[in-house]
Amino acid sequence: MLKPSLIAGVAALVSLAGAPAIAQEAAAPIAVPEHSVFIFNSLLFLIGGFLVMFMAAGFCMLEAGLVRSKNVAMQCTKNISLFSIAAVGYWVIGYNLMYPLGSWSIGSDETGGYLGAFGVAVLEAVGVSPENADDLSYASTGSDYFFQLMFCAATASIVSGALAERIKLWPFLIFTFILTAIIYPIQASWKWGGGFLDTQFAFQDFAGSTVVHSVGGWAALAGALILGARKGKYGPDGKVTPMPGSNLPLATLGAFILWLGWFGFNGGSQLAMGSIGDVADVSRIFANTNAAAAGGVIAAIVLTQLLYGKVDLTMALNGALAGLVSITAEPLTPGLGMATLIGAIGGVIVVFTVPLLDRLKIDDVVGAIPVHLFAGIWGTLAVLLTNPAATFFGQIASILIVGAFVFVVSAIVWFFLAASIGIRASEEEEMAGLDDGELGLEAYPEFGKGSQFI
Amino acid sequence: MLKPSLIAGVAALVSLAGAPAIAQEAAAPIAVPEHSVFIFNSLLFLIGGFLVMFMAAGFCMLEAGLVRSKNVAMQCTKNISLFSIAAVGYWVIGYNLMYPLGSWSIGSDETGGYLGAFGVAVLEAVGVSPENADDLSYASTGSDYFFQLMFCAATASIVSGALAERIKLWPFLIFTFILTAIIYPIQASWKWGGGFLDTQFAFQDFAGSTVVHSVGGWAALAGALILGARKGKYGPDGKVTPMPGSNLPLATLGAFILWLGWFGFNGGSQLAMGSIGDVADVSRIFANTNAAAAGGVIAAIVLTQLLYGKVDLTMALNGALAGLVSITAEPLTPGLGMATLIGAIGGVIVVFTVPLLDRLKIDDVVGAIPVHLFAGIWGTLAVLLTNPAATFFGQIASILIVGAFVFVVSAIVWFFLAASIGIRASEEEEMAGLDDGELGLEAYPEFGKGSQFI
Amino acid sequence: MLKPSLIAGVAALVSLAGAPAIAQEAAAPIAVPEHSVFIFNSLLFLIGGFLVMFMAAGFCMLEAGLVRSKNVAMQCTKNISLFSIAAVGYWVIGYNLMYPLGSWSIGSDETGGYLGAFGVAVLEAVGVSPENADDLSYASTGSDYFFQLMFCAATASIVSGALAERIKLWPFLIFTFILTAIIYPIQASWKWGGGFLDTQFAFQDFAGSTVVHSVGGWAALAGALILGARKGKYGPDGKVTPMPGSNLPLATLGAFILWLGWFGFNGGSQLAMGSIGDVADVSRIFANTNAAAAGGVIAAIVLTQLLYGKVDLTMALNGALAGLVSITAEPLTPGLGMATLIGAIGGVIVVFTVPLLDRLKIDDVVGAIPVHLFAGIWGTLAVLLTNPAATFFGQIASILIVGAFVFVVSAIVWFFLAASIGIRASEEEEMAGLDDGELGLEAYPEFGKGSQFI
Repeated sequence: MLKPSLIAGVAALVSLAGAPAIAQEAAAPIAVPEHSVFIFNSLLFLIGGFLVMFMAAGFCMLEAGLVRSKNVAMQCTKNISLFSIAAVGYWVIGYNLMYPLGSWSIGSDETGGYLGAFGVAVLEAVGVSPENADDLSYASTGSDYFFQLMFCAATASIVSGALAERIKLWPFLIFTFILTAIIYPIQASWKWGGGFLDTQFAFQDFAGSTVVHSVGGWAALAGALILGARKGKYGPDGKVTPMPGSNLPLATLGAFILWLGWFGFNGGSQLAMGSIGDVADVSRIFANTNAAAAGGVIAAIVLTQLLYGKVDLTMALNGALAGLVSITAEPLTPGLGMATLIGAIGGVIVVFTVPLLDRLKIDDVVGAIPVHLFAGIWGTLAVLLTNPAATFFGQIASILIVGAFVFVVSAIVWFFLAASIGIRASEEEEMAGLDDGELGLEAYPEFGKGSQFI
Repeated sequence: MLKPSLIAGVAALVSLAGAPAIAQEAAAPIAVPEHSVFIFNSLLFLIGGFLVMFMAAGFCMLEAGLVRSKNVAMQCTKNISLFSIAAVGYWVIGYNLMYPLGSWSIGSDETGGYLGAFGVAVLEAVGVSPENADDLSYASTGSDYFFQLMFCAATASIVSGALAERIKLWPFLIFTFILTAIIYPIQASWKWGGGFLDTQFAFQDFAGSTVVHSVGGWAALAGALILGARKGKYGPDGKVTPMPGSNLPLATLGAFILWLGWFGFNGGSQLAMGSIGDVADVSRIFANTNAAAAGGVIAAIVLTQLLYGKVDLTMALNGALAGLVSITAEPLTPGLGMATLIGAIGGVIVVFTVPLLDRLKIDDVVGAIPVHLFAGIWGTLAVLLTNPAATFFGQIASILIVGAFVFVVSAIVWFFLAASIGIRASEEEEMAGLDDGELGLEAYPEFGKGSQFI
Repeated sequence: MLKPSLIAGVAALVSLAGAPAIAQEAAAPIAVPEHSVFIFNSLLFLIGGFLVMFMAAGFCMLEAGLVRSKNVAMQCTKNISLFSIAAVGYWVIGYNLMYPLGSWSIGSDETGGYLGAFGVAVLEAVGVSPENADDLSYASTGSDYFFQLMFCAATASIVSGALAERIKLWPFLIFTFILTAIIYPIQASWKWGGGFLDTQFAFQDFAGSTVVHSVGGWAALAGALILGARKGKYGPDGKVTPMPGSNLPLATLGAFILWLGWFGFNGGSQLAMGSIGDVADVSRIFANTNAAAAGGVIAAIVLTQLLYGKVDLTMALNGALAGLVSITAEPLTPGLGMATLIGAIGGVIVVFTVPLLDRLKIDDVVGAIPVHLFAGIWGTLAVLLTNPAATFFGQIASILIVGAFVFVVSAIVWFFLAASIGIRASEEEEMAGLDDGELGLEAYPEFGKGSQFI
């Protein structure tokens, strides 16, 4: 998802040697007019963007279905609020921090940037003319902003699921602002803004197994460790008390919506649709993304059947998501079979690491850390299987650098919040449910247990 | 959303003076072939149209989640039925009444039309050739019809929420037919069909804060006044009895779906995507629409925290919708900051006017009148902040003219229905729930209270 | 949905006589560059494909809402699993079996093929050049594969609803693999792969009233007969025990999602969007598809009101779906009025045939057989009303040939599965619910009846 304007900078250097080949290509008949390319690319971002936007609903339904009914309204409140906070955070700081377009605060395009530009995002003027478009060979700035914002918001959505059922609303939203305005954009600039991971490490992460998903996972892990587990989840004798989700069809709907949105997530990350090659690549990405999700589901249902004698629906849902996360770092180069396999391994990872976290007494309510962090790492390494541009060192180093940065900075922020305003709901609120304690309402006032509160 | 074919008529007059400028423009290199423009524009309508169509599901889920469980199946029945009735009403009468294309029954394009053409909508022939296309510079008639129909249906969806839990099914559907076949199209023709509000008042309403949302709100207000409040809602001592929604995650899903659909609603209303300027404008609109919704949510959660000491999820949802309604009259010209602010003020309006309606004993079950009418008026006035083509007089006068027309005609229709077949369910049916009384089934036969009916 | 590369083969023969006309057309100015056509067509498949993909969520929600709460998690498990199995089945065998592109195992393009090619689906290379694209006049192979896969998966989704609440998971998934890898592709090749129904019978089925929907219906009917009815559904005295769905708003959401997805289903089946005529046709299809669904709803609500004195929500939902199935064989040539009528007759069929199946003691939990098989047959015959290319004999013969093939082969597979591993859950599991018996969890552990299991 490197911006072409940055690639153009690199291409200008390369063309000193490669000029003849490029000249030949320029002599070929141009079958799609230049302005059509701009329109097609912008349209790809708009379609991709609304699909990724809808993932906010997917995360919300998945999490609302996987928490207990006494915390469902809070989970909905957190999800619609974080999505809104992200829109502000990315606008006022995040976008230019992520895409400095050469104006690095620390570093440069040549040496590799470390800290992007500070400034509010500004779109092209109304009815912009071709001469005044920011980048005629790319797409409208508004479509790019819209698309990128949705990735930033998705990162924040990942966190809310892991910390559900015990975190207070406002500290969570303050963290969300810092994550979407600063933490996510800085590390994303290192790769997608043309920063040092891109230039010095040749890091390959097509649509963000690391840049988006593992980042959400690291931030969630830091939060989960500082926040602690839900009361009663882990007994003193090592016993793990299941706290089943209250509405599994809603969680299933969430998984399907995320699956749908992922076509925009991965497909839009091609960043171009205005040529035969680009639209065929977007098509490959759609097909591969679907194959990987399917692989994740099949692995999860087969494995839970073999391990436990029964298929586990929540594992099937998380298997789908893990398959999707796994293919996100490289959805283009694999064939359909390899994509299915990469996704299946993601599904296997989830089935084995969800109980592992419980053994470590790390309480991740919806399985966000296995799905987004562990499968995200796997997906980033899986690039090595099919994309020769990736190096083992570059992938590993980038995983570690991004992980260390996000985990440490997140932990500091969580720690500061915990030490100041506090991040954890009181024990009474947690027992009664955050809906009652923090919102003063119920998600399902007429159903089952909920009715005792009437 | 004025049709270009109507603009062309005006342009023909203007071009007597401005011909040289137009000739110069024609001499510039055309980078996108003419037929591509037609295809891009039609595609914009198809994408925008299916997104707005999905808003029908959003309204349905929002309303089904905000009514009590004993009325949920009825709310679903109303929503899928009204959407179907709208498809017939707009086809047989509405479309040509809204877009007379010069054939006004009363008035003309020059003087400003008042009453459009009568006739059934007819699409272009199968496999139409460029020579036979209705408007080669615009888009296919089928795509335009599809897109405009969805706006008409959205107007009707607004009404169903306000009148929930006590209105009978068939009178509601009869009203829906009149609204979608006659009331909505007539007033929409005044602006978007090139009628007198467009020509004489220079009324600016990009995607319909007034033409769609306030119209739904006025029709709902007239209905709510004639229908009366739910039994027990307002005590003799001025006490307001809360009747909490039965399924808040479903309502949240509805809000997210509406948010998604709004990209089609506002973005499609650019009516063109076949040039750099147009696609960049659609992109601005997507980004601004999202910013306004986010502003609405943030305003609502901050304000309810300050006012009541607790965040209110239903206010957050309605804040998002109010933000979206607020930006709908002018989603193009504001910058991201102004769009966020316009949406935030919409959110503030909702937080203050929902209790106001209760004080007036106007029973609006889901908050449709604050969201669509009050925020719709605000959005129509907010055009003045950024679009110099709007005048204070033109905006105010148009709000009042549309409001008076829709409120009076709707009240007459509601009154006629009430006096003839009756519009209100019996007290027994209301107590038992409309699901039992009118449909003879239950939405959730196995959950909580619902199970008492088994 | 016949592939243009196959049409080209026929056109080559025809052009011996028709060459002058074609030459004239070639002399006309080409307004859309050739590569744009490829991009537009591929984009149509990608958009259509993700819309049809989302129908998987629609089927899942519809079915999850219409079964009793004790079987909801199983229904979700089946739906996400079958969608994943389909992705593998269509990849390893189905795609080339359906589109042999001349390489028939039995038959040929000239005589009409009977059995397609065996082989794994392979997409175009990364960044394919125009010279190396599989079919430059059509669309990218990846977009075509993605789109066609979603149709195959939809066929399998139809089956799961009919057999709900008593079939075991794994036998169902084995059947799904055979259906998506072999049964569906073989019969689809007969029409859409240019096989004998296309060449010898001039069979007309635009988007699959027969090829998709009736196929799902036949497979479901065979399964329902061999599987038998749910315990207690049909008493010895002919009494039918209603087993109402547990979550009607979820079922309504499912119907709306299916309605949305159908624009991709029918619109994408135009297979082209790169000319004035094609995009106008896609637009007609969108408008007609919506009209037919609306007709189905209106017919169902009016008819249930007249027959039973009360409107039935589940009939309204199935009326919408029956309207959609009915227009699927020919969504292009009807006008809006005829489309509404065709859909309305579909709605009538559903209202009359749902109770008919009960009289025959065929237990179809969600009404899949009336909606997809009976309305599918009606839709296939309705082609005769507006498309002169269809013949009565060709339509009838194709319905019967496809029906006989799918029913017989499905019955053999179901029989084999029943006789080997067994397809039916034990009576205890059925009573306790498949969620408890097969999955060991609950869909709604805290609501109503569900809470007895805690």
